[in-house]
Amino acid sequence: MNTRFYNCKILTMLENDNWFDGEVWVEENRICFVGTCEEAKNVTPIDFEREIDCKGNLLMPGFKNAHTHSAMTFLRSFADDMPLQDWLYKQVFPMEAKLTGEDAYWLSILAIMEYLTSGITSNFDMYMHMEDCARASSAAGFRTVLCGNVNDFGGSDDTLREENEKFNNYDELISYQLGFHAEYTTAKPLMESIAKVSQELKKPVFLHNSETKAEVEGCIERYGTTPTVFLNEIGMFEYGGGGFHCVHITNNDLKVMREKNLSVVTNPGSNTKLASGICPVEKYVNAGITVGIGTDGPASNNCLDMFREMFLVTGLQKLSQNNAAAMNADEVLKMACVGGAKIMGLNDCDSIAVGKLADLIIIDLNRPNMQPLNNITKNIVYSGSKENVKLTMIDGEIKYEDGEFYIGIDPDLVYRKVNEIIASKK
Amino acid sequence: MNTRFYNCKILTMLENDNWFDGEVWVEENRICFVGTCEEAKNVTPIDFEREIDCKGNLLMPGFKNAHTHSAMTFLRSFADDMPLQDWLYKQVFPMEAKLTGEDAYWLSILAIMEYLTSGITSNFDMYMHMEDCARASSAAGFRTVLCGNVNDFGGSDDTLREENEKFNNYDELISYQLGFHAEYTTAKPLMESIAKVSQELKKPVFLHNSETKAEVEGCIERYGTTPTVFLNEIGMFEYGGGGFHCVHITNNDLKVMREKNLSVVTNPGSNTKLASGICPVEKYVNAGITVGIGTDGPASNNCLDMFREMFLVTGLQKLSQNNAAAMNADEVLKMACVGGAKIMGLNDCDSIAVGKLADLIIIDLNRPNMQPLNNITKNIVYSGSKENVKLTMIDGEIKYEDGEFYIGIDPDLVYRKVNEIIASKK
Repeated sequence: MNTRFYNCKILTMLENDNWFDGEVWVEENRICFVGTCEEAKNVTPIDFEREIDCKGNLLMPGFKNAHTHSAMTFLRSFADDMPLQDWLYKQVFPMEAKLTGEDAYWLSILAIMEYLTSGITSNFDMYMHMEDCARASSAAGFRTVLCGNVNDFGGSDDTLREENEKFNNYDELISYQLGFHAEYTTAKPLMESIAKVSQELKKPVFLHNSETKAEVEGCIERYGTTPTVFLNEIGMFEYGGGGFHCVHITNNDLKVMREKNLSVVTNPGSNTKLASGICPVEKYVNAGITVGIGTDGPASNNCLDMFREMFLVTGLQKLSQNNAAAMNADEVLKMACVGGAKIMGLNDCDSIAVGKLADLIIIDLNRPNMQPLNNITKNIVYSGSKENVKLTMIDGEIKYEDGEFYIGIDPDLVYRKVNEIIASKK
Repeated sequence: MNTRFYNCKILTMLENDNWFDGEVWVEENRICFVGTCEEAKNVTPIDFEREIDCKGNLLMPGFKNAHTHSAMTFLRSFADDMPLQDWLYKQVFPMEAKLTGEDAYWLSILAIMEYLTSGITSNFDMYMHMEDCARASSAAGFRTVLCGNVNDFGGSDDTLREENEKFNNYDELISYQLGFHAEYTTAKPLMESIAKVSQELKKPVFLHNSETKAEVEGCIERYGTTPTVFLNEIGMFEYGGGGFHCVHITNNDLKVMREKNLSVVTNPGSNTKLASGICPVEKYVNAGITVGIGTDGPASNNCLDMFREMFLVTGLQKLSQNNAAAMNADEVLKMACVGGAKIMGLNDCDSIAVGKLADLIIIDLNRPNMQPLNNITKNIVYSGSKENVKLTMIDGEIKYEDGEFYIGIDPDLVYRKVNEIIASKK
């Protein structure tokens, strides 16, 4: 939709850019002008369907949720405050086994609605019923990168080849990256065949990696080394890739990560709630590794809120390093906007610049938690909340504005459906 | 204001109560009816000025911010990501020295607005310019318990006597508790004279206690023992009291706390951001100690958000104990509503029951982050955000509803004032 945003502070998220007062124009789904008000006056305007007075609020690229399992919304607050193994084996797995594709569709729609309230414009989604998840994103107009999820309970190397072909040609909003669940849930021959697919397609591979201490210890027992080193040895990372969580790593792991240009998606909310540990995010940043931020699934977090995650990324580094100066907030905001986009292969969604896709949000600065305007980016990371998300635009379409959803689906129907789904599984 | 809340889920926060569908009536500033819809039909209604259809949303007691320095809003995001000592001595103290009483008034108003957005209906406020802080709460219609703040830089035992007399007779919304800044900022003779005031007035004493490791080590150097044990030895806790933070404690401290019925206010956001450590909250709960939750001041947090604090209270216990089952969320919600009220002496504000003061909030459950309704209280603690605060009522008056403030002061004026204040100090 041709849209003019004027009277806004613009945070492009381009390297070394500070915010400035100006205008952004969107033609269909791409940005066609970025500049000051003065500069805008000297450019021939296009036909706008909507001209939005941003009233001095901040226009910036949307947040990327770089690791999640959207359809797990049905298990939000279903079984909390339990030991991890009981939670997973007695609650999560038995409930998931009962899910249908149609269930996954509605549960994904609910997650998408929550993403919109948090200024999240795309997700890196790993779950069963992949086609239904794609269908939900497509229906709601949400940008989703699907992640391969094969493991010993389902899927093969051919699954990955088929998914790669299918979902990279599904819809403009949908794309796909190779992936498998984790080392501890996938037998060696299957992992070896996945490595071959990666080399054949020349594509990176993503997985849950080193989330818990027990997982790493198990791998050492099985293969004599850590998951990162082991997977590298079997040729998994010849075309790069990345790990979700990466909480428990060794210096050898870090060496592999640097050599193979691997990326890390940190999930501090989930790691906190499930007591998995604190991801050494600043160590990754200092090593030049690209870091993105994910909410993980709503069963383990329980919310899908990039503001909570951003605060935790910096806060937990400060706590674990005993140093209030650790993990600068500006770097964290980059992870949420730019790092995630790079990891997910969304290179056109990372910043505000001419030619980039219009995945944009307006942050309401005219709220008490954003005042005074001492430092806008630090305000966002340390003080921001869903309250501040005034508008979320994806691919040039406004999907959320002033608390209302524009996804073509009635929110009350979604709430009714998801409650029916959980009730039917009990 | 006589108000009828109907069609609501009611969470009374009375011991062992689960939520139920019903109605709550408020007559002037107190609750005069609580019951089911059926029960309401059998009671003669009063004259209502407003009847609110809650549309199935949750009515519950407001949150108590049991430790804060409201007027520090001017330093929000002013100097982050710095070592603690540099932050305090090079940034905070020099800026604070320039504050006037009128500044403190406007800065407190900004904080009060943020409290309202987070469902916080009262605060336990410790700051300079106490009268201006009281004036702000009184003007905005916010409930404030002021906390004595004497230390070597200002105030004496007589200050406490005068403040106690003045602010406990100031206004229905204002009350006062004895307090001093901390052991490390207050000379022994002054602390001894404060202990005498406490014994003379038969009132508890509150202070910052054992916030950092360095503070405790300093006390051991000075007095050969920890702050809690030392203060007890000089007679500070003969009428109880409590500590803000209480991160670094010994078993002897815990013994004193139990013996003297001391309470603890935890401030996990601030302790995280300033890398002070993790407060052993569950240890306190298991010892039967009353725990409340505070945001601390906005210079150190940087936001005034009870939802963030509640998540951190449970999350950090899980992380530090390596146990996903640690610190049940239901207990955390109690701290935020009931524990804080008990500590602050607001015994009429802790629950929904006939005769209690109408300090109430409506939590919007018809938002994606609250769905499905598997468990409403866990949803609030793990997934709630300012987005969910639909209405905040204090002393029977609606002060915030659907994002709008009803405090008799124009928000834009407040934003302009606080930006002018910080600009004038640079």
